[in-house]
Amino acid sequence: MTDIFEVPTPDNELLEKAKQLRLASIKTSQTNNDDRIRALNLMADYLEKNSKEIIEANIEDYKKAEIKGISKSLLSRLKLSKEKLNLGIEGVRQVGNLIDPVGQIQIKRELSKGLILERKTVPIGVLGVIFESRPDAVMQISSLAIRSGNGVMLKGGSEANLTNLAIVSALKEGLQDSNLDENAICLLTSRKDSMAMLNLEKYINLIIPRGSNELVKFIQENTEIPVLGHADGICHLYIDNEVNLDMALKVALDSKIQYPAACNAVETLLIHKDTASEFLNKAIPMFNSNDVKLIGDKKSFQLGVAFEANYEDWQTEYLDLILSIKIVNDLEEAIAHIQKFSSKHTDGIITENINNANKFMSEIDSSGVFHNCSTRFADGFRYGFGAEVGISTQTLPPRGPVGLEGLVTYKYFLRGEGHIVDDFSSGKLIYSHKDV
Amino acid sequence: MTDIFEVPTPDNELLEKAKQLRLASIKTSQTNNDDRIRALNLMADYLEKNSKEIIEANIEDYKKAEIKGISKSLLSRLKLSKEKLNLGIEGVRQVGNLIDPVGQIQIKRELSKGLILERKTVPIGVLGVIFESRPDAVMQISSLAIRSGNGVMLKGGSEANLTNLAIVSALKEGLQDSNLDENAICLLTSRKDSMAMLNLEKYINLIIPRGSNELVKFIQENTEIPVLGHADGICHLYIDNEVNLDMALKVALDSKIQYPAACNAVETLLIHKDTASEFLNKAIPMFNSNDVKLIGDKKSFQLGVAFEANYEDWQTEYLDLILSIKIVNDLEEAIAHIQKFSSKHTDGIITENINNANKFMSEIDSSGVFHNCSTRFADGFRYGFGAEVGISTQTLPPRGPVGLEGLVTYKYFLRGEGHIVDDFSSGKLIYSHKDV
Repeated sequence: MTDIFEVPTPDNELLEKAKQLRLASIKTSQTNNDDRIRALNLMADYLEKNSKEIIEANIEDYKKAEIKGISKSLLSRLKLSKEKLNLGIEGVRQVGNLIDPVGQIQIKRELSKGLILERKTVPIGVLGVIFESRPDAVMQISSLAIRSGNGVMLKGGSEANLTNLAIVSALKEGLQDSNLDENAICLLTSRKDSMAMLNLEKYINLIIPRGSNELVKFIQENTEIPVLGHADGICHLYIDNEVNLDMALKVALDSKIQYPAACNAVETLLIHKDTASEFLNKAIPMFNSNDVKLIGDKKSFQLGVAFEANYEDWQTEYLDLILSIKIVNDLEEAIAHIQKFSSKHTDGIITENINNANKFMSEIDSSGVFHNCSTRFADGFRYGFGAEVGISTQTLPPRGPVGLEGLVTYKYFLRGEGHIVDDFSSGKLIYSHKDV
Repeated sequence: MTDIFEVPTPDNELLEKAKQLRLASIKTSQTNNDDRIRALNLMADYLEKNSKEIIEANIEDYKKAEIKGISKSLLSRLKLSKEKLNLGIEGVRQVGNLIDPVGQIQIKRELSKGLILERKTVPIGVLGVIFESRPDAVMQISSLAIRSGNGVMLKGGSEANLTNLAIVSALKEGLQDSNLDENAICLLTSRKDSMAMLNLEKYINLIIPRGSNELVKFIQENTEIPVLGHADGICHLYIDNEVNLDMALKVALDSKIQYPAACNAVETLLIHKDTASEFLNKAIPMFNSNDVKLIGDKKSFQLGVAFEANYEDWQTEYLDLILSIKIVNDLEEAIAHIQKFSSKHTDGIITENINNANKFMSEIDSSGVFHNCSTRFADGFRYGFGAEVGISTQTLPPRGPVGLEGLVTYKYFLRGEGHIVDDFSSGKLIYSHKDV
């Protein structure tokens, strides 16, 4: 990625694309639920019609990437099998089954007779999405954007350019057949545009980065546009003294190994000193037999943890089969450690003591606070949102796993009959403030 | 203000204050509704007990300011009369009557048997408030912060230092008598700290600027901390061709003169060409007799508007008895002008044609879109929020007038019985996603 880590000024060609996208997004925001669902189905139809071309384009990309000698993991993410494609197409249709996030009435209030205030959800406008290899992301992101009445500017990894182009042209054919504007989806392929997008604050309302922590951090630091996403996921699990040991072992293992590369996997295990030796006696062989490398503080090292931790470990997101372990004197010390090192993603406690659980859950200021369950549940699909736009670790909303609601905002609609403020300050009229 | 327009690194003394405030804010976030209401009443009690000292401190500040020769408008805002103080104290008590914004359940969902997800509102943490002269703001801001379970760091204009100190010491006495931590309110008085606050992103979660556009712009550009507020308020009112002329005149006048210094006052009037001459025949004398200076485009100039407008006028927030006027060919031209020049605060249309109203309200992407009423209604109190924390012109929430809900965020609480994700991926368990 480093070769695109600069932020050039947008050239006229890019500005022209952005303007067209902006106009198309305004049209898209006017469409009703049926129009948008119909568009999604047509997009899916054309993906099916063009699947041969899409697969061929992907084979081309893959060959080039092999010759270029990119990493195995990148290659596997680049590969778009027929199965992957069909899953992606099915996903596009399923987005149509999600509840329409647009036009939801949040407030309806009579301010005074004949003066009615409404607060309704509306599309954000234009989304800017920057992602790496995975071409299937194009289908998912585009369908979520259209579902929520937004326009979207996409920039994928250059190694997937041919595949992305083939997918987007199919999606645009679908939009053409519907009564939506095909310019609502805009794909950037040239390297120089890739980061110039960050300077389009006049045209893009929200940036959604999909990629390495390195990429996300860079984006957050180099744009005035709000960014939906998170850099680090340093999640903690605290094993209390009043604990069901089997449950603690089971949840700790799942939180680490169920999918170690995920941001909601646990990185640091905190253990109450009274539980430590009994827990570690069973945990060390369990983790060893699952190829988890354990790195512990002095006390846990003395209790048999293989490697000794340094300060760095408490602030490292391993994203791997590595787990740092610290023994604490009490709940307070555990909370203090988490308040210091947590990336505010998800932190959990295992305890049979409900007061300790409540204290932990209210004093830890993370987007997710869990009691007696795996940190891996921190996910939009598992929360029942149907789709996940991203996970935010910021304090202000949207926070935690964000579903479609992250792609809409709201607007105040006030309708009167010639009402003026002076009549209220003069006392001629009074506010009723009656919700209707 | 310019003399404080630099952002120094916080010194140890300030960092120490920030740490204490952070800890106090965590305690405050644990308090229940009754605790916080009781604290507010005690804060009000001590303001009453100390009102003599507060008034005397203000007289001192006022004398110094006079000698220093600060502007009349600043002097009048600095002045804290007994009446103003009593209103402020009454305001502190009234904040207790507002609905508790904390602990509101937004989502309660069974993900699977025994695995319950809750999304509840929680305090944001620490608010940083930077404001100019008006010492009564200290009472209002502090009470809103405590009401919503937050800690607050305050920095007022140095010319009001003695008054602010007297008020804050009374507020802290009130907190001491309640079971809240007095450190939850922290006042900065030294000039060097004033802007160093912008570098406290580790301790402050939200900055609320109260002051000139110049101050707000500077803050927005010089901190990584989210800022709740707005720089410009360039509001438009469009007079359509199908219009009730008397209503149009009445609303246009109110939108301009009811309080011209407010951000929700109209700055530009757009008039459909077919209505222009008839409207201006009545509007020009009406505005003249109210000392409103009219600046118009060529067409309106030819129809009798006194001064001719240049490009600058369309992007100027006069905050004064000045109004720019432009004649447009149709609704589309009006919408295009607003999309280009609006600061996305509040824009209105006067028309008898409901389709035109709906088109205007859905295509204009401002936080407030009004039909047949004055732009001056864009206000938290008039919307029935009971309090106004600020008005946001950003696209993402919180948007428009922001009440107490702007001082809380939310958190996901997940409680299980040893649930692990592997049981769901293996198919042993399935998600129910049932709202309960």
